Amino acid sequence: MRIKVTQEKLSKALNAVSRIAIGKATLPILNNVLIRVSKKKVSLITTNLDMAVEDYLPVSESEDGVITVPAKLLAEFVSNLPKGENIEITSKDTKVTIKAGKYSSVINGIVADDFPELPEINEKQSVVFKIGIEEFKNSINQVMVACSNDLTRPALTGVFFNTYNNTLAIAATDGYRLAEKKIINKVESEVKAIVPASSLQEVLRSISDDIEEIEISFNEDLVRFRLGDIEIISKIIDESFPEYQKLIPKNTNISVTLDREELIRVTKLAALFARSVGGSIVCEAITPDAFSVKSIANEYGENDSRIETSVDKPGKINLNSRFLLDALNALEEPEIIFEFSNRIAPVLLKNKKSNTYTHIVMPLNS
Amino acid sequence: MRIKVTQEKLSKALNAVSRIAIGKATLPILNNVLIRVSKKKVSLITTNLDMAVEDYLPVSESEDGVITVPAKLLAEFVSNLPKGENIEITSKDTKVTIKAGKYSSVINGIVADDFPELPEINEKQSVVFKIGIEEFKNSINQVMVACSNDLTRPALTGVFFNTYNNTLAIAATDGYRLAEKKIINKVESEVKAIVPASSLQEVLRSISDDIEEIEISFNEDLVRFRLGDIEIISKIIDESFPEYQKLIPKNTNISVTLDREELIRVTKLAALFARSVGGSIVCEAITPDAFSVKSIANEYGENDSRIETSVDKPGKINLNSRFLLDALNALEEPEIIFEFSNRIAPVLLKNKKSNTYTHIVMPLNS
Repeated sequence: MRIKVTQEKLSKALNAVSRIAIGKATLPILNNVLIRVSKKKVSLITTNLDMAVEDYLPVSESEDGVITVPAKLLAEFVSNLPKGENIEITSKDTKVTIKAGKYSSVINGIVADDFPELPEINEKQSVVFKIGIEEFKNSINQVMVACSNDLTRPALTGVFFNTYNNTLAIAATDGYRLAEKKIINKVESEVKAIVPASSLQEVLRSISDDIEEIEISFNEDLVRFRLGDIEIISKIIDESFPEYQKLIPKNTNISVTLDREELIRVTKLAALFARSVGGSIVCEAITPDAFSVKSIANEYGENDSRIETSVDKPGKINLNSRFLLDALNALEEPEIIFEFSNRIAPVLLKNKKSNTYTHIVMPLNS
Repeated sequence: MRIKVTQEKLSKALNAVSRIAIGKATLPILNNVLIRVSKKKVSLITTNLDMAVEDYLPVSESEDGVITVPAKLLAEFVSNLPKGENIEITSKDTKVTIKAGKYSSVINGIVADDFPELPEINEKQSVVFKIGIEEFKNSINQVMVACSNDLTRPALTGVFFNTYNNTLAIAATDGYRLAEKKIINKVESEVKAIVPASSLQEVLRSISDDIEEIEISFNEDLVRFRLGDIEIISKIIDESFPEYQKLIPKNTNISVTLDREELIRVTKLAALFARSVGGSIVCEAITPDAFSVKSIANEYGENDSRIETSVDKPGKINLNSRFLLDALNALEEPEIIFEFSNRIAPVLLKNKKSNTYTHIVMPLNS
């Protein structure tokens, strides 16, 4: 195996693939990057068994072969070499020599036979979507905030991609809140797949400035995200997602329009005083013209702020301040709608104008 | 107690003093900021018993009084209020009311009687130095890198301010390396005082862009740093500092001039391979024209880089790569001098032109 490539290109590609290989994996080869040269095509591949990242590397010279090298060591070594240098990597058995001008190193690699590659996506049987990168990034962030970390409920640790009414929507819930975003209209194919949040985080981190669109291909048990030269293949979580549309309230008694920035500010102020009571704050619609957010009096003191707005019907609800802030930060418009019915039904939060994003938060017992 | 002040001024002052009060202090009042209003002068004071930070706050209205309030809660509350608001703080018994436009809160304070204030500096008996802020900041950073974290050797956890030959020098050592910087010439007063590195870190953090000069006053057991409206008073470490000048080699056998950036690069490259051997790297002067930095072959592989330079006498020394990098980062000039004698005597590192900064590193056993 031999490749010749500029420092910039190699460093960029190694950084793209090495993130998932730098954990303290129990299987040592998972810390390595696979370098495969076949018919002048060079790929760098890493995997953590749940997901694999592959980057195609444009090189000026190459000789076929395959080897694995500690990913972090190689990435750091190359990033410390002077920009503009041409780097030559050659392997002989498991010795990998890296030469760049007057710099030279020998890294001990591992033969590629044991590298656990994920299966390829079956192109023919896959369902493919394309979406603009900004829309993708924003939508994933808006929904992923509601994912759970609880590994005993695997379905809730992912984002559910699902089609209904010819729309592709993504949704996540941790049992306390739920977020849904409709991302593509007029879709004809169907998909129901839970993608691990950890894989989506890796996809988000892999987006560079020159990427304009992402291609998402679903197979039976795999999903592939293609971003320019980078491919991220992830297993799908083999569980059924809760029937979440039933959880979104159809009708609510009280609907208040609020300035989003102002509501964020008063929620933060109340949250400071709510630390000793688990973040619990009280939101109250007061007829005819006020919305109050307050902390319950406790060892720190107490806090009450009001926002002017028109209110038809009065009502009160206790919420976790962090969940409310997460929802407000996921909303986008200057004005948002805060809807609720009573102290035990969920709060519905949405943008005032657009209706593609829905966030619900369960109340706390009062 | 009553004060009226703009959000910007109050927030800036609270941020300046609240850093040292946000630890989980065993004495609850140490988490509080003392607000003292006396004859239209308002001061905010925090302490961690070893050090106190005091900031004078310019206010538009005030009534005398004194109270303590949880520092972090107040700082965060005020920083979340809208910029431009006028804030009024009033205390009644231990209830502290904060009002700003439509925002209002009551914070539970603690009476000031138990607040452990540090003694004042005795102005008449103190030795005072003034120094430009950039020079101060750079010099402290150049020296503090050699401080120890070992609390069982308190003298080594501070920076030693000491005068000799009419010069004020600062020095620090952890037993493995030593750094000295001469900061003021032609001084007439004398001082020998070890200032805790933690206090100096707080001083460095307190430097804002509008500060041009720092005044340092030494008493028998206290030091005061004055930066505009902020005063930081710290206890001095009551120990004797090692006679460090004896440790600096007077003569060395081998002296090599090196490009600093280039030496940093090759040291970093060698350090990557030196992780499994405790960071140990080998530096070698090779006649007539090379300086080599290499890692010892190990499980990761091996690395060898050379810098061109003129070498009179050959020699080899083993160093800890992190200590060498710390020293190189503390040096300033494009060209530096690397001097050593044999494998057991310390390495002397200095800038090529200026001679105010000296850094020595003890070799590792080879």
